[in-house]
Amino acid sequence: MNGIPNTPLHPYYPLGVAIPGYVAKTLTTQEILAIFTATCLGILIPTWLYIRHIRRDLPSSEVLTALWFVLCGFIHLGLEGYFAFNAHDIASHSTILGELWKEYSFSDSRYLTADSFVVCMETITAVFWGPLSFLCASCIVADHPLRHPLQSIISLGQLYGDVLYYATCAFDAAHLGIEYSRPEPAYFWGYYIFLNAFWIVIPLCLITRSTRETGRAFTALKELSPSKIAK
Amino acid sequence: MNGIPNTPLHPYYPLGVAIPGYVAKTLTTQEILAIFTATCLGILIPTWLYIRHIRRDLPSSEVLTALWFVLCGFIHLGLEGYFAFNAHDIASHSTILGELWKEYSFSDSRYLTADSFVVCMETITAVFWGPLSFLCASCIVADHPLRHPLQSIISLGQLYGDVLYYATCAFDAAHLGIEYSRPEPAYFWGYYIFLNAFWIVIPLCLITRSTRETGRAFTALKELSPSKIAK
Repeated sequence: MNGIPNTPLHPYYPLGVAIPGYVAKTLTTQEILAIFTATCLGILIPTWLYIRHIRRDLPSSEVLTALWFVLCGFIHLGLEGYFAFNAHDIASHSTILGELWKEYSFSDSRYLTADSFVVCMETITAVFWGPLSFLCASCIVADHPLRHPLQSIISLGQLYGDVLYYATCAFDAAHLGIEYSRPEPAYFWGYYIFLNAFWIVIPLCLITRSTRETGRAFTALKELSPSKIAK
Repeated sequence: MNGIPNTPLHPYYPLGVAIPGYVAKTLTTQEILAIFTATCLGILIPTWLYIRHIRRDLPSSEVLTALWFVLCGFIHLGLEGYFAFNAHDIASHSTILGELWKEYSFSDSRYLTADSFVVCMETITAVFWGPLSFLCASCIVADHPLRHPLQSIISLGQLYGDVLYYATCAFDAAHLGIEYSRPEPAYFWGYYIFLNAFWIVIPLCLITRSTRETGRAFTALKELSPSKIAK
């Protein structure tokens, strides 16, 4: 369909793809990005102050990891949860979150066409990785023994979902010639590649760290034979 | 398309779905199931004897878990790897593995239509969970400290892939009215539900166990403060 000089009723790709109930967004790109950035900062700054207040001794890398999971919790539950709950008619929504998804969909129209993989992956992300992200953040702050198993599970879930997200899109482009992104580089490279890359790079680092820490814990336990432990 | 009284050129559902290059299978269901069962036993029995030979002290639950990962390794690499590598034209294959996929596809025709999610998920399964399953089996036998992180990663990967596999199919049925399985209960309940349920139930048990063991290891390390360890 891509490239056919017809006149679509919406600005999304592939040109002419059916988006039932579509209502054009009214907020500008700048307004949407400003709202998104302000919300992220409005979550991160008070959380950072709170963590610093209750755990002054927590290393900066741990604080950053806890902040990452808090932000993930809000994005998974709030943003992706909204999508998952309204996937069937989100193109008709003029709420702030509806506008935000219509802005993002310039880079991937599958969010407006209720693509089965995208809806299922986002639902799992919202239902499981959302609440678990908050739990993991609190485990980090509390230095809880389940922190690394949790961190590993959530991060692998995010990583796998994101790899499949990229892969299915690339497969459709290579196999069927379908492009879901508008051709402007800002949408493809800025929204689709850059924004999602966070959930490739950071989970990979966190899985590696948790695997290493867990390996160390089991090694240390093994080395501490009963004879070395004072009765 | 489902239910339209046309005459499909193949026996797969939804009726009339395009399966380019389709060649009918020649082996019977009994022959395919016999080959599959014999291959599984041919892998499991020598592996069981070998593990028992080199680790007589290994508890039965650990031997069973190692056998599970060895079987997973063969299925992911051999069976699913074959599919991932030949997804574009597997309907035309008359090899034993091609016949096996054509038999299984009675319960899910997405395997013959190069469905983007199925191809991507199976490729990741073959490339990552296949080799890692063998590695995990050897870690279990060697009592390696990385066994639980590995077991948890592979099991979550299998579980998430399988949940998405079920979910996308259910979503297409509910949202688009598309049924990918033939109507005979043996295909839907026997192949689609029963065979895949192993990769829901067993990974769930293994993730739970690894999470618990890892939590215990970190708790034990925390309790073993330096003062309790003899110099």
